[in-house]
Amino acid sequence: MNEQPRRRRAGGRAANTARRGGADLHQSDWRIPLNTDAPTEPLRPEGVQAIHEGAMRILEEIGIDYLNPEAIEIWKEAGAIVSGENVRIGRDFVMEMVAKAPSQFTITPRNPAREITVGGKHILFGNVSSPPNYMDLSLGRKVPGTREQCANLLRLTQAFNCIHFAGGYPVEPVDVHASVRHLDVLFDKLTLTDKVAHAYSLGPARVEDVMEMVRLAGGLSEDEFRARPHMYTNINSSSPLKHDYPMIDGCLRLIRAGQAVMVTPFTLAGAMAPVTMAGAVTLSIAEALSAIALFQYVRPGCPCVIGTFTSNVDMKSGAPAFGTPEYMRATQMTGQMARFYGLPLRASGSCAANVPDGQAMWETGNALWSAVQSGANVVYHAAGWLEGGLIASPEKFIMDCEVISMIQRYFEPELVATEPEDIAVDAIREVGSHGHFFGIQHTQDRYETAFYSPFVSDWRNFEAWELGGAVWTPERAHRVYHEILSSFEPPPMADAARGALEEFVIRRKEEGGAPTDF
Amino acid sequence: MNEQPRRRRAGGRAANTARRGGADLHQSDWRIPLNTDAPTEPLRPEGVQAIHEGAMRILEEIGIDYLNPEAIEIWKEAGAIVSGENVRIGRDFVMEMVAKAPSQFTITPRNPAREITVGGKHILFGNVSSPPNYMDLSLGRKVPGTREQCANLLRLTQAFNCIHFAGGYPVEPVDVHASVRHLDVLFDKLTLTDKVAHAYSLGPARVEDVMEMVRLAGGLSEDEFRARPHMYTNINSSSPLKHDYPMIDGCLRLIRAGQAVMVTPFTLAGAMAPVTMAGAVTLSIAEALSAIALFQYVRPGCPCVIGTFTSNVDMKSGAPAFGTPEYMRATQMTGQMARFYGLPLRASGSCAANVPDGQAMWETGNALWSAVQSGANVVYHAAGWLEGGLIASPEKFIMDCEVISMIQRYFEPELVATEPEDIAVDAIREVGSHGHFFGIQHTQDRYETAFYSPFVSDWRNFEAWELGGAVWTPERAHRVYHEILSSFEPPPMADAARGALEEFVIRRKEEGGAPTDF
Repeated sequence: MNEQPRRRRAGGRAANTARRGGADLHQSDWRIPLNTDAPTEPLRPEGVQAIHEGAMRILEEIGIDYLNPEAIEIWKEAGAIVSGENVRIGRDFVMEMVAKAPSQFTITPRNPAREITVGGKHILFGNVSSPPNYMDLSLGRKVPGTREQCANLLRLTQAFNCIHFAGGYPVEPVDVHASVRHLDVLFDKLTLTDKVAHAYSLGPARVEDVMEMVRLAGGLSEDEFRARPHMYTNINSSSPLKHDYPMIDGCLRLIRAGQAVMVTPFTLAGAMAPVTMAGAVTLSIAEALSAIALFQYVRPGCPCVIGTFTSNVDMKSGAPAFGTPEYMRATQMTGQMARFYGLPLRASGSCAANVPDGQAMWETGNALWSAVQSGANVVYHAAGWLEGGLIASPEKFIMDCEVISMIQRYFEPELVATEPEDIAVDAIREVGSHGHFFGIQHTQDRYETAFYSPFVSDWRNFEAWELGGAVWTPERAHRVYHEILSSFEPPPMADAARGALEEFVIRRKEEGGAPTDF
Repeated sequence: MNEQPRRRRAGGRAANTARRGGADLHQSDWRIPLNTDAPTEPLRPEGVQAIHEGAMRILEEIGIDYLNPEAIEIWKEAGAIVSGENVRIGRDFVMEMVAKAPSQFTITPRNPAREITVGGKHILFGNVSSPPNYMDLSLGRKVPGTREQCANLLRLTQAFNCIHFAGGYPVEPVDVHASVRHLDVLFDKLTLTDKVAHAYSLGPARVEDVMEMVRLAGGLSEDEFRARPHMYTNINSSSPLKHDYPMIDGCLRLIRAGQAVMVTPFTLAGAMAPVTMAGAVTLSIAEALSAIALFQYVRPGCPCVIGTFTSNVDMKSGAPAFGTPEYMRATQMTGQMARFYGLPLRASGSCAANVPDGQAMWETGNALWSAVQSGANVVYHAAGWLEGGLIASPEKFIMDCEVISMIQRYFEPELVATEPEDIAVDAIREVGSHGHFFGIQHTQDRYETAFYSPFVSDWRNFEAWELGGAVWTPERAHRVYHEILSSFEPPPMADAARGALEEFVIRRKEEGGAPTDF
């Protein structure tokens, strides 16, 4: 046939009737996928040792700055060499502390059925977090985020079973004053979703407020809340070589309350990190291990995740790039280091693209696949990110969810099952050289669940697609977005819990919310 | 920093000056990348054995139909059990024959510097082949292909160093009569490119004509041509369980002339193959091995590639899907089988999308990454494919070349180098906790080649991108397309060779070209 499709496109006509995406998502049930692929390991053992050795030398010889006085005091007590804000620690201490961190733990949100397991072969995906701006196709331009847009993106976070946790604010609602923003968004998040929530480490008051709100939303006593992780925070170091005040403060508060922390240096090779990818990874590892060692010293065994966010800049402009080959290799290398230290790994979906087009999807696809290849346990920003994290896009959210759903489907064991009925010699014999597999029993028994079913992809042929309006993917995603919003129902919540939350928000607003001078 | 990008976007302003894509592609030099990643292997050894056992049972118990009388005679001579068109062969014979195939070989086009190595860790990418239709953004609609469009896509094939071979017709020029189409397209291909060319197995006259044209273009004697591979053909079986006349005829002609063949069953699970992926792969393996065994019997040691093109249909419409999770796993499983048999592997870039948008890029990205993960040696259709292979798109070609170039960059060893200067402890010490890596010597020494440099991606921030016209990726690709065409210079060619080609085409046209009743 020479791959001239005219002859092999038997399904072309039937494709006219292909189902279109819509609010009826036909998605898989909620579950935590297991990444059963062997990780991609570009480093040989000597390479792992070289990065480890480099990170240890940074910690021993150069040190990390802590802009947090409490941390400085703790470091002194722990026997570190402290000089002003600079903290140097020996490798034996680092390794002893890091070894105390669990390789796997759970976080249980208000709906226990949405509990997530962090570590091992589990791979979790979360929504985009923290863009200051929002853009959708009906607006047609980039605007500062609002509470309504934020809530709508939280509805998407809840609607998609492939999204396992509600990360940071999916867009920063700058129409809400910073002093009470955390109260409003957390109220929305804890009522519109029943998935694991996050607290920004942006000052003591916010962190304490969010912990209290998560406790109230779950109807938990103080002891029940503190008994195990119900939420987490994620911090970035201020590369190079610095941890700032509120980040460390937030983590200390969470670990003392039994909650989980993720430490994610953001090291852009060529800017705040060495131009070499191994160098950028080494710096990232040193910064992360320093903080994790501190937390393990304060609360041995507290749940910690090591994060990677190492990419490169465009050396001609300084613009950050994402989903590049360098980004992929850095993510994979950090995965090897995370396994070396026995820590769960966080990576990201990300892109530099400004609109939900082809570039956005190849960059994000590269980032997501590198997360898979690295053995990442937590994939931040997996849906909805544009412009290097400066724009939240609902269309991109929908499109990313298709890719993430396919990744989750990819890990279903039935795809690679090789029992006799999978090998199907009898079915092949039955059909012979002149038949078709559509109608036979072997197919009929399996066709409903045999293959991934898309919700925004259009698999129809060109003519059917054209007759249907010639709708490109972002516009289809826009429709799906509105279909989800119009049919959205918030997850059930006990009246008492909801009432307690409302009461707390009112009271804290009356008290003036959180200071904004952190 | 909590990943609120406002603070970490130091490069944002500088990004205004980011270089735009253009004909000045800044691409890497021509080279054959080595896939140094361990392949992704979803099958355990028992799974490989189960597929092998299934394929052997198909060949022994069910048999493959050969619609080619010469092949039937050869099979009788070889001791196969022949019943009409049906041919059954024992596993010992199959394995004995397949073992004769080389695991690696070269193909040398008219420019020896463009020689490709097929097998081992080498990974080669080729242009889209065989779509009957063409679409570009200035046309705005799908039209039957023309010679001019075909030639323009051949110019792209030549322009991009990431494209290693010129596969089939990048679009079928239906404005040229089928009797002489091969003459005109091969003339264009052999003059506009100096990369490895391909002959469609569409009847004896075409195959013989193309071999002669490749010989003339290279200025080779008959003996020189036959001494080693200078070209190849690719055939598809007529699944289920059939090889048709011209496909087998073409392969027999090529291997007897010392040229290379690729055997690629096209097995759509649920349509012409079992609904189970392992079953579809098993059928594909059986069909391919049958033909390869035949070829090895005829010419022991002749260069053969086993191809995979196993995907699934949308069970609701029958429409073929590409780049699905099922497609990825089938490709990886076939990779394991190819290594089991010691044969080089061919896979593909592909998508169901009708336009060069996000869906096109995530489907193609999935397909391309699964080719990488499977250890594929030859990646067909890697640039320019839309609508399940029914449309050739120059914009998609450009966009795919960005992805392919990134994959090739991904395999450069420097990305994961861990020598002391890569770990960069001294640079980290020099910059300390308050500096920046931009200006230091360690960066200056490396910045020009440190990172992948894009030609169609736009990495500028939103405001700069908007000021620049808010151009989405397909439109940028359209511009790059025309920039490449306007600056295109054909590769050098000896006057004698060009003259001989011209003469041959004129003579064969006078003789009426090839019969069109194959």
